[in-house]
Amino acid sequence: MQFADRLNNVETSAIRELFKLLGKPGIISFAGGFPDSAMFDVAGISAASQAALQQEPGAALQYGATEGYQPLREQIAAFMAAKGARDLAPDQLVVTTGSQQALDLLGKTMINPGDKVIVEGPTFLATIQCFRLYGAEVISAPIDAEGARVDALEKLIAEHQPKLVYLIPTFGNPSGAMLSLERRKKVLELAVKYQTLVVEDDPYGDLYFGEAPPPSLLALSSEVPGSRDWLAHCGSLSKVLSPGLRIGWLVAPAALLGRAVLREQLGDAVEFLQPQGGLFLWVRLTGKGGALADAGELAKRAIAQGVAFVPGAPFFAQNPDATSFRLSFATADEDKIREGIARLAQALKA
Amino acid sequence: MQFADRLNNVETSAIRELFKLLGKPGIISFAGGFPDSAMFDVAGISAASQAALQQEPGAALQYGATEGYQPLREQIAAFMAAKGARDLAPDQLVVTTGSQQALDLLGKTMINPGDKVIVEGPTFLATIQCFRLYGAEVISAPIDAEGARVDALEKLIAEHQPKLVYLIPTFGNPSGAMLSLERRKKVLELAVKYQTLVVEDDPYGDLYFGEAPPPSLLALSSEVPGSRDWLAHCGSLSKVLSPGLRIGWLVAPAALLGRAVLREQLGDAVEFLQPQGGLFLWVRLTGKGGALADAGELAKRAIAQGVAFVPGAPFFAQNPDATSFRLSFATADEDKIREGIARLAQALKA
Repeated sequence: MQFADRLNNVETSAIRELFKLLGKPGIISFAGGFPDSAMFDVAGISAASQAALQQEPGAALQYGATEGYQPLREQIAAFMAAKGARDLAPDQLVVTTGSQQALDLLGKTMINPGDKVIVEGPTFLATIQCFRLYGAEVISAPIDAEGARVDALEKLIAEHQPKLVYLIPTFGNPSGAMLSLERRKKVLELAVKYQTLVVEDDPYGDLYFGEAPPPSLLALSSEVPGSRDWLAHCGSLSKVLSPGLRIGWLVAPAALLGRAVLREQLGDAVEFLQPQGGLFLWVRLTGKGGALADAGELAKRAIAQGVAFVPGAPFFAQNPDATSFRLSFATADEDKIREGIARLAQALKA
Repeated sequence: MQFADRLNNVETSAIRELFKLLGKPGIISFAGGFPDSAMFDVAGISAASQAALQQEPGAALQYGATEGYQPLREQIAAFMAAKGARDLAPDQLVVTTGSQQALDLLGKTMINPGDKVIVEGPTFLATIQCFRLYGAEVISAPIDAEGARVDALEKLIAEHQPKLVYLIPTFGNPSGAMLSLERRKKVLELAVKYQTLVVEDDPYGDLYFGEAPPPSLLALSSEVPGSRDWLAHCGSLSKVLSPGLRIGWLVAPAALLGRAVLREQLGDAVEFLQPQGGLFLWVRLTGKGGALADAGELAKRAIAQGVAFVPGAPFFAQNPDATSFRLSFATADEDKIREGIARLAQALKA
């Protein structure tokens, strides 16, 4: 079996072998960045999940919006506002299954094979793997205790014109380094000056021992004109609440966010196969008796009549059949189905 | 901002615009393949989630294995066995967030730009988008009420030598078509004859009205020698239990499955930055006084002493520092940390 070439760019075997050994009895692990399970608010999470299932079972268990559950987006925006990103609107972020999915979306939407990406040396190894998987050449910028050395970073940006610069400014993984306030502002200025996307990964910012860290790049971006247009911010509840919740988020310029949300989506005038199961009725407009034969046009008329379906053309990889459409009979109950079909008949006549 | 070229292959705007209109009050929707929320077993799911949080809060809320929670893998294997795939072992499948993630993993691991992929015409539009995103040329095979016409399919396979053939054999989306038993066996024979991966997507197989559908390709593969080596099977609980659970699975040959699991992962002999927060201590072996300076070697000795950490080299995109390693102090409590550091000191001396 021939695998995709992009897998050749990824090397993980040493770490994988190590993690297999962690199952040995009695091993004390300083390996994974796992929060202590004893710290999880099990009672709180349990009560919250019960409340969600009781109060809004449909929303909790049904398919949801690609961008994420709107009340959660609002809560995350409020959480970020409390940490200084005061002008962040809920529609400027999408909910992800963690920072990792945000990174995958950034790689998928931004990186062409051969593009250059600058990261801290050292940085989160899964980030290196993720960007390499999409064909990036990953370049290391030197760090010290105050994080990325911005003088060296500027030289590297000027030399390599990278597609993006990825930083963990607060408590870097694995370095633990903290980018100083002065350097944070300088990074935002570099983003604007070189029109380079800066990706701030910030899963650890709330885990400080003494003094609070400087504001995030996202919070500071309001002080550096134009910098918000060149900044993406990845956040996560994995380290502050629980990894098992699988909740993270991506804040990014509108154009990028739109690209990252790759969403999936009567009489003799119609003919269809009687399905034996499943969710769908696949219908074709026959055009008989001068009836409408364009399913896209019918879809528009149908919306006006208060009934919706999916035109068939996008289901074809080649030679789309413009007369076809798909009716899902799984969501509406029988009365609704009868009413919907009556409206569809109206739309056909209209 | 310059986006990745792969986005040029994806066209979804018509459907996206349609789905935006679904929010209009009073619309009866035959559009999305959403199960009726009234059918969800809210009480059962609620009780199960409470039980998981009470009995195993650590497992429920902590990071888990990339392959999925082992008891869940066992349950899924048993579920598949009850439907005829009797020889399926839990380690032959990985848990995903739905069929969609399984398709993304298949695209990522299998498809090079320019590779050919054969699908039914019409087929699930998100599949077309997913494979195109990884650069596939997607070719349509004709169908009738018994699903893909295997004679035409064989000609297309012989002509195009595709990287994979993607089918929804049972209650196709959007066609509702059902691949006959005879054709199912023929498809498996074609997989072996042409050494072509066949991907069976089966989210709807349990949703039949009358007679049960023929066994899945996965179940039938035991009757066609060699075919299991060329078969991947995507399953999902979204249509039979609830989409909100986000549980699916991918059964595939071991080599493919291994590729799809792209996992993320004292004294003056060491020096480190005192972190101000976060989860990690980033350490360097100084080699002073003839002490060990190779963190990879130290990791091996440390495991023998019962303590684990991550060597630093893989965190560098360039010029790896072999003397560095990362200690996570987040998982172990204080007593464990003291004991672990004592073991580490032993390993350094060993």
